Amino acid sequence: MIESALTCARQHRQHYLDSLVELLRIPSVSMEPDHEPDMKRAADWLAEYLLRLGMSRVEMPVTDGHPVVYGEWTGAGEDAPTLLVYGHYDVQPVDPIDEWQTPPFEPTIRGDDLFCRGASDDKGQLFATIAAAEAYLRTEGRLPINLKFVLEGEEELASPRMAAFVERHRKRLATDAILICDDAVLDPQTPLIMYGVRGNLYLEIEVRGPAHDLHSGTFGGIVDNPFNVLVRLLAQLQDPETRRIKIPGFYDRVRTMSDDERALLAKVPISDEVARSLTGVPVLAGEQGYTTIERVSVRPTLEVHGLPGGFTGPGKKTVIPARASAKVSTRLVPDQNPHEIAQLFEAYLRAIAPPTVELTIHKLGASRPSVIDYQAPAIQAMAQAFEQGFGAAPVYMRGGGSLPIIAEFQDTLGAPIVLIGFGMPDDNIHAPNEKYHLPNFYRGIETLIHYFSLLATAVRGGAT
Amino acid sequence: MIESALTCARQHRQHYLDSLVELLRIPSVSMEPDHEPDMKRAADWLAEYLLRLGMSRVEMPVTDGHPVVYGEWTGAGEDAPTLLVYGHYDVQPVDPIDEWQTPPFEPTIRGDDLFCRGASDDKGQLFATIAAAEAYLRTEGRLPINLKFVLEGEEELASPRMAAFVERHRKRLATDAILICDDAVLDPQTPLIMYGVRGNLYLEIEVRGPAHDLHSGTFGGIVDNPFNVLVRLLAQLQDPETRRIKIPGFYDRVRTMSDDERALLAKVPISDEVARSLTGVPVLAGEQGYTTIERVSVRPTLEVHGLPGGFTGPGKKTVIPARASAKVSTRLVPDQNPHEIAQLFEAYLRAIAPPTVELTIHKLGASRPSVIDYQAPAIQAMAQAFEQGFGAAPVYMRGGGSLPIIAEFQDTLGAPIVLIGFGMPDDNIHAPNEKYHLPNFYRGIETLIHYFSLLATAVRGGAT
Repeated sequence: MIESALTCARQHRQHYLDSLVELLRIPSVSMEPDHEPDMKRAADWLAEYLLRLGMSRVEMPVTDGHPVVYGEWTGAGEDAPTLLVYGHYDVQPVDPIDEWQTPPFEPTIRGDDLFCRGASDDKGQLFATIAAAEAYLRTEGRLPINLKFVLEGEEELASPRMAAFVERHRKRLATDAILICDDAVLDPQTPLIMYGVRGNLYLEIEVRGPAHDLHSGTFGGIVDNPFNVLVRLLAQLQDPETRRIKIPGFYDRVRTMSDDERALLAKVPISDEVARSLTGVPVLAGEQGYTTIERVSVRPTLEVHGLPGGFTGPGKKTVIPARASAKVSTRLVPDQNPHEIAQLFEAYLRAIAPPTVELTIHKLGASRPSVIDYQAPAIQAMAQAFEQGFGAAPVYMRGGGSLPIIAEFQDTLGAPIVLIGFGMPDDNIHAPNEKYHLPNFYRGIETLIHYFSLLATAVRGGAT
Repeated sequence: MIESALTCARQHRQHYLDSLVELLRIPSVSMEPDHEPDMKRAADWLAEYLLRLGMSRVEMPVTDGHPVVYGEWTGAGEDAPTLLVYGHYDVQPVDPIDEWQTPPFEPTIRGDDLFCRGASDDKGQLFATIAAAEAYLRTEGRLPINLKFVLEGEEELASPRMAAFVERHRKRLATDAILICDDAVLDPQTPLIMYGVRGNLYLEIEVRGPAHDLHSGTFGGIVDNPFNVLVRLLAQLQDPETRRIKIPGFYDRVRTMSDDERALLAKVPISDEVARSLTGVPVLAGEQGYTTIERVSVRPTLEVHGLPGGFTGPGKKTVIPARASAKVSTRLVPDQNPHEIAQLFEAYLRAIAPPTVELTIHKLGASRPSVIDYQAPAIQAMAQAFEQGFGAAPVYMRGGGSLPIIAEFQDTLGAPIVLIGFGMPDDNIHAPNEKYHLPNFYRGIETLIHYFSLLATAVRGGAT
């Protein structure tokens, strides 16, 4: 059964590529209201594709946000395990658009790479899971496992409705394992299994001073400029030497790394030279006392993303702006709680803010960190599948990014989460010139064909 | 002679207002290349107006920037003094445009105020000088003094070509006094003579880190985010307690205030409560050891105007931007030199910047501070003119804003500079809803009619 699926996958690479290109051309930017029709188009495209490939049931359950595409095939029977595949078809905004070498929604192949917004995060990866199912259904008319797809359109908004969705449909979504294919290998010889993700708290800090913009000649010297204050507040968030975050209580719930975990992470073959080269920085930097891998996986961070307000056009304008704001986020690690951190953050800012300004903190997003037992059979089956598909055993690492849905899945469905991906570390996700390494796409499809087969024997069904 | 001019001015207020409205409708934003045709239109409008009112010679000398309108009337003879009037017809950009109650280039009267970009800075004020000349020429066919107009279109760009212009035309521009009408009274009962201006140094500080934008999940924790670094650099520019600027050497050339000057400034009737009300800040702030008037006139300042770069759109994007920048300016006082301060500024930033980023400092503008002898006869004649036109003696103050041309006029033409204005402190210049108090416009025209007459007897001619 698996051989015919593998052969089919190898013979139909062009078909998979053409189909992915169709999906990529739809500019499904969930964050921008102008793209709402595109969100619907992308969901329709996926639903039609799942129907055509032979899923037994395809639906778009009613939600009040961007559509969720649900598809299932449960013909493997009750003794076979069920796998729920979660993916997202929404993509990040494209700015700064000037820095794209080719238009962001014009899929373009250069060398082995397919350039397009969403190519790696996550359309190209979710499509690999669909292609693996297609290879089985097209050749055998059946899969070795029961399969359920949940493809959402709000992941880049931090999945604000997914928890409620999973809760509402928990019976229908019952599963023995959950596959999330939205990550990267270290390189094509080093696949990766993520056994956790960081959480995230995203704030907009607004500082208001004068009632209206003032001329810095007339009034400069007698009022606190909101930007002068804001940069002082932001500078006090992090120690410039140790890079520790200075919010009191911030580290209270951070789990101490065990020696075992430190040793596991030390096996990840990413040298500082590779990290420097991937980022292009003159010198790496980070929290004192931790290695590069630890800094991007088990330790929290703080980033200033941009400072809206004031004068930012060409030339010079001598304005004291009435308000200044900053978009700031912090990556969180188990067992930090984003809502508690938001309270600590705000209390600290209020304590250090001068009485010359008014401070407002807007919480734009909050997601919980997670850690997963990587020794679960459903995850070890994936390790074997990687050996087949990539010819190499995976390394294990906790992910630096955030997938809010992980904590929700853990709470509601209680199944082990298999968190992998076929992207590359330099895919420029969330940045200009996002790309997807096509050899990984094809290897990924084969890896998943193996995985479906390996899972069928590793895990006993109970979820259908 | 003066009585008929005053009567004429009173009878033709509507004509002056209509003419000013015509000029204000032209969106002469010198900073924005799209408005270049409007710059030409505004210059043409002024040149035609000066010709029609009876100036003996009107020209637009060739420059490689926005046009300078030159007009002269030298019929008063060699024994009469010559007054050179300098004004500017260019205006500031209009953003944030959403905050304008009526469109920025649609002159709108509400109560006693005329709302329009440029109404106060400087079209409404330069037009008062033209209107005063018109009142004499229309009734008597002559003026009591020789009069020269230099109306430029690049003041809001810090007059980059004016110094060379004055130098090239120094003989034609020879004068016994220079009138610059681009400022404000404290209130209609308290006119003001400015005996100095602050200089300005405007920098854009650019910090580059990663070679391209990075995802804060994948790479957060191992690179210095350019915005995290930039806010630390900016926060180190100023002491949060004393509000002193921390750049070494910054204060070395700042003149110590004399007891006489401190006493003169103490006469300016601006209470802290008034200053708070004009700005709308919760609490005033400023350099320790100085009064409010001193802080806005004889002391330097530092302002962050805006921070271009990164993500500033709606929603949230977890990007570590490749570059971050800040628009920063400092108001300078005698005898600080902007070019020397720029060197000190850059040296300090380079000394405190970490090796994790690359720093580039762009000098966007530099103008020198000035101080003027307010006891010169040409200035005392203006004090008398204010008593006639406003019914009150003026107070004396050094201006907080910058007029780069003052230092150039002092160097090249060697004549005393009469720096006054008919604006109001809350005119919202350089900000949304700029306005001009119309009763001041009419009082201003009459004051200038008096001034031309008083100057004729106070100063002996020698410049024609």
